[in-house]
Amino acid sequence: MDFDDAEALHHHWVLTLICVDGPGIVHAVSGAIVAARGNITESQQFASLDTGRFFMRLQVEAPASRSEFELALQPVVDRYAMSWRLDEVGRPLRTLVLASTAGHCVNDLLFRQRAGQLPVDVPLVLSNHGTLRDLVGFYGVPFESLPVTDAASKAAFEARVLRAVDEHRIELVVLARYMQILSPELCARLGGMAINIHHSFLPGFKGANPYRQAHARGVKLIGATAHFVTSDLDEGPIIEQNVVRVDHSRSPSELVAIGQDEESRTLTQAVKWFAEDRVLLDGARTIIFR
Amino acid sequence: MDFDDAEALHHHWVLTLICVDGPGIVHAVSGAIVAARGNITESQQFASLDTGRFFMRLQVEAPASRSEFELALQPVVDRYAMSWRLDEVGRPLRTLVLASTAGHCVNDLLFRQRAGQLPVDVPLVLSNHGTLRDLVGFYGVPFESLPVTDAASKAAFEARVLRAVDEHRIELVVLARYMQILSPELCARLGGMAINIHHSFLPGFKGANPYRQAHARGVKLIGATAHFVTSDLDEGPIIEQNVVRVDHSRSPSELVAIGQDEESRTLTQAVKWFAEDRVLLDGARTIIFR
Amino acid sequence: MDFDDAEALHHHWVLTLICVDGPGIVHAVSGAIVAARGNITESQQFASLDTGRFFMRLQVEAPASRSEFELALQPVVDRYAMSWRLDEVGRPLRTLVLASTAGHCVNDLLFRQRAGQLPVDVPLVLSNHGTLRDLVGFYGVPFESLPVTDAASKAAFEARVLRAVDEHRIELVVLARYMQILSPELCARLGGMAINIHHSFLPGFKGANPYRQAHARGVKLIGATAHFVTSDLDEGPIIEQNVVRVDHSRSPSELVAIGQDEESRTLTQAVKWFAEDRVLLDGARTIIFR
Amino acid sequence: MDFDDAEALHHHWVLTLICVDGPGIVHAVSGAIVAARGNITESQQFASLDTGRFFMRLQVEAPASRSEFELALQPVVDRYAMSWRLDEVGRPLRTLVLASTAGHCVNDLLFRQRAGQLPVDVPLVLSNHGTLRDLVGFYGVPFESLPVTDAASKAAFEARVLRAVDEHRIELVVLARYMQILSPELCARLGGMAINIHHSFLPGFKGANPYRQAHARGVKLIGATAHFVTSDLDEGPIIEQNVVRVDHSRSPSELVAIGQDEESRTLTQAVKWFAEDRVLLDGARTIIFR
Repeated sequence: MDFDDAEALHHHWVLTLICVDGPGIVHAVSGAIVAARGNITESQQFASLDTGRFFMRLQVEAPASRSEFELALQPVVDRYAMSWRLDEVGRPLRTLVLASTAGHCVNDLLFRQRAGQLPVDVPLVLSNHGTLRDLVGFYGVPFESLPVTDAASKAAFEARVLRAVDEHRIELVVLARYMQILSPELCARLGGMAINIHHSFLPGFKGANPYRQAHARGVKLIGATAHFVTSDLDEGPIIEQNVVRVDHSRSPSELVAIGQDEESRTLTQAVKWFAEDRVLLDGARTIIFR
Repeated sequence: MDFDDAEALHHHWVLTLICVDGPGIVHAVSGAIVAARGNITESQQFASLDTGRFFMRLQVEAPASRSEFELALQPVVDRYAMSWRLDEVGRPLRTLVLASTAGHCVNDLLFRQRAGQLPVDVPLVLSNHGTLRDLVGFYGVPFESLPVTDAASKAAFEARVLRAVDEHRIELVVLARYMQILSPELCARLGGMAINIHHSFLPGFKGANPYRQAHARGVKLIGATAHFVTSDLDEGPIIEQNVVRVDHSRSPSELVAIGQDEESRTLTQAVKWFAEDRVLLDGARTIIFR
Repeated sequence: MDFDDAEALHHHWVLTLICVDGPGIVHAVSGAIVAARGNITESQQFASLDTGRFFMRLQVEAPASRSEFELALQPVVDRYAMSWRLDEVGRPLRTLVLASTAGHCVNDLLFRQRAGQLPVDVPLVLSNHGTLRDLVGFYGVPFESLPVTDAASKAAFEARVLRAVDEHRIELVVLARYMQILSPELCARLGGMAINIHHSFLPGFKGANPYRQAHARGVKLIGATAHFVTSDLDEGPIIEQNVVRVDHSRSPSELVAIGQDEESRTLTQAVKWFAEDRVLLDGARTIIFR
Repeated sequence: MDFDDAEALHHHWVLTLICVDGPGIVHAVSGAIVAARGNITESQQFASLDTGRFFMRLQVEAPASRSEFELALQPVVDRYAMSWRLDEVGRPLRTLVLASTAGHCVNDLLFRQRAGQLPVDVPLVLSNHGTLRDLVGFYGVPFESLPVTDAASKAAFEARVLRAVDEHRIELVVLARYMQILSPELCARLGGMAINIHHSFLPGFKGANPYRQAHARGVKLIGATAHFVTSDLDEGPIIEQNVVRVDHSRSPSELVAIGQDEESRTLTQAVKWFAEDRVLLDGARTIIFR
């Protein structure tokens, strides 16, 4: 850190970069940062042998304004044909939450937002049920419910989602146990900006009531997977997973309760990493710069 | 504990009982134990709502010989049509180990046997390769290899397994990364007395090279499942599961190494519980009295 | 289960028993249960080699009323000089919560109570600050704050605690990050019925700001311990512990946030086990019948 | 990666750098690497707010020989007064193992070395007992035992350690359950190059037989800590920690067995990270570039 400039350090930037791997990238990027009188406070990189792409995440303290900093980076970005993203560290991500009747994930997200542990700003919770109105209201967050009972009401709900995304310039959509399948069109529209949470078992189970199946097979670990939403149901790139140990004495309903805990903490963790620009996509998998 | 009889307490029995659930079972069993002047030092029970069966495991210190103790238990066993098993606590289980080329599971089993941490007695390791001869020999355990390259050599290998089971009065067969599929006949013959170890992923992957698939999907947890061998490949009742966290930076070969650690400790744990009579079958699932 | 009596099974009892170990106890207890036409649905026992005491927890379905069931048990209880406790499975435990300014533990407790995941009934949250009034109010739970600033106000607070314990016939007092040291008198009065939560580190740290010390030592695991309150500060019998992995990049304030998560889930788990009569004391340690 | 030069990429270097933090470091380092036609394949950095120091670890593929690469780096190293270390990725670290009678840690280290999972080369195991001679011999590793029974024999043992360090140009000394306290002189001589393993409990216990104390307090988690050896016994900078769950039913000897498993895997992990140049010292704590 250059202490002479300490008084001038107005900004703390987070910068993510993706490009085809090759020599000299780090040197070029760091050169641009030096030129902008920035100090790198956190840096992570990864070169994917699978796709030949290079991924980088930096946190930089710099006196430069956003436009000055962008100007300094532009030549490097152009030279390497980088996709990139520049943001202020800690800026709350505008996040739309979709829910149904289960409150555990929504409560965890909103409580942590309020406690300052999760850099998101939730302007709206949309649900296909009214169940969570009071819970959401307690946290001072607007709540709307629109029933989804047929194709027309489903289309209306999804149109409302898209309108909310536009109105609030939403950057992340969280499916916090929203129990409707999104249309392929909505999945495509929200590609890379929607996170879902899903229970997970070893081994996996197809079909209805997986907790009952897990009980019947006597699984010893149950868990949850947070992943990006894609049109391939429950198969999007994985962001985070957790499991917890169970035994034969657990009833199906106890497994549900245990699984819900894993869902809450796994989803919240995934949202946190995404909001901190720590989640990058490398084909079908994620790079997580924890 | 009845201290007056302390000098007479020659035996420490482990007793497992399975029958249709109903009132009075515990009272009847404990009555027989009192009659045999036994003291219950450990007791676990479970009534399965799934199958209506009752499971019990007891450790009993008693002056009674095996035949005296069996005599005392016989009326209760008959009354409730119990399947049961009586053994001495800590008696090493006669265990046949099948292996191929990978040594991690075999080494863990034999090291812990020698260290007195695993109550098994391994009279023979059979392999379809010669790779592990030295490793097994170090532990003073006989080793035989028979190549399995076609139907005839496979039949010969399995016949050798059955002969070994008879010759050594084997009570447990452990597939310690034995990479051949057992014939349905052998699976049936070893039903409830053979344990296999299998890598596990969230989600599961079909087909070849699952570690490469897990890498491609960017899974965050990899693990292992120890289960009973059934003719339904990798789908037998689960005994134990473990997972460990990985990230995007792990190559497929690193995932293999990490997975092997989980396989070793998971298999050894499952064998230990089985050897201690802690694993009972309730239909497609196991009751583990840890 | 005796299906002919199915219609008569009005009660589901939980019974805990502690006495000096000796032969025949299980038989005597099960005999009394058979006499009361009860069916044991869950049973755990433990004989402590440390103290020579025997611990038992049973769940029993029986047509007997409480007084009938007590009558059936009385001879056994007398014969073995047992301390015992009989309750209905699932009855919410009357629980007083003490708090200060941090809301994470209180929120977790009240949310799970409302969600039906925690069998407690909280008639009052008492705090030495007003900070949590809104949070507690949202869950429909009465809230009172009394400042504690000197010996007199501390005595007044503790007197209010004792009055609340009497008024509401409190069975459990939870110190949900209540940051005042209880007087030895109050500790004694609440012996065996008050649970505290405490951060935990490997190794432990004495003195102020342990998270800063943990950061300075570069600990890799931080966690939480829930324990019974005794006058020996933070040294009461341990009920539950959890840890989570951290690394060098975590600031002290991030360690605090991570530690709070562990505190919440560890305290809630301990309260759940206590409310389900799964926590028994064996000298300085707990028997947990999970 | 510069594919035109693929045939020329003879070396895979690992480079660690430590200096006072300031702007331009990354740029200067990457410039030197570009000049040497190197390609960065892995990079991690950390700026310590505690000490104001900057830490960096790089893996670089480069056609440069060691002397060429050092020449390219020298100006940067000089400018920032860096302490640095350059090595080939995967080169086995010359490692001296000290042991006493317990074989679990030694076995785990030697088995993984032989399996190619641990980049160490162990030219000698030194013990104050002869117990492990056969175990060590199996792995083809020389073994020497010298009894330590008094001050003179202890001095002789330590002299032998120092001679072995010189003879074999030892880079790492692993105390694999070596149960003698090293003299302050030896600790000082081995500063930053000796790793010890230690059981860990929540809370910690002073004095003899901690497993018995842990049992008496009913701890729910036991674990292990691998740390650098310093003259402050068991208080050196922590490299790795693990814990595992236990319950009241575990006897002290079972706790020992469980603790030994944690010791083995924790020590092996710490050695692996050290051998891969992933462990850097920042005052009293370690930076682990996993």
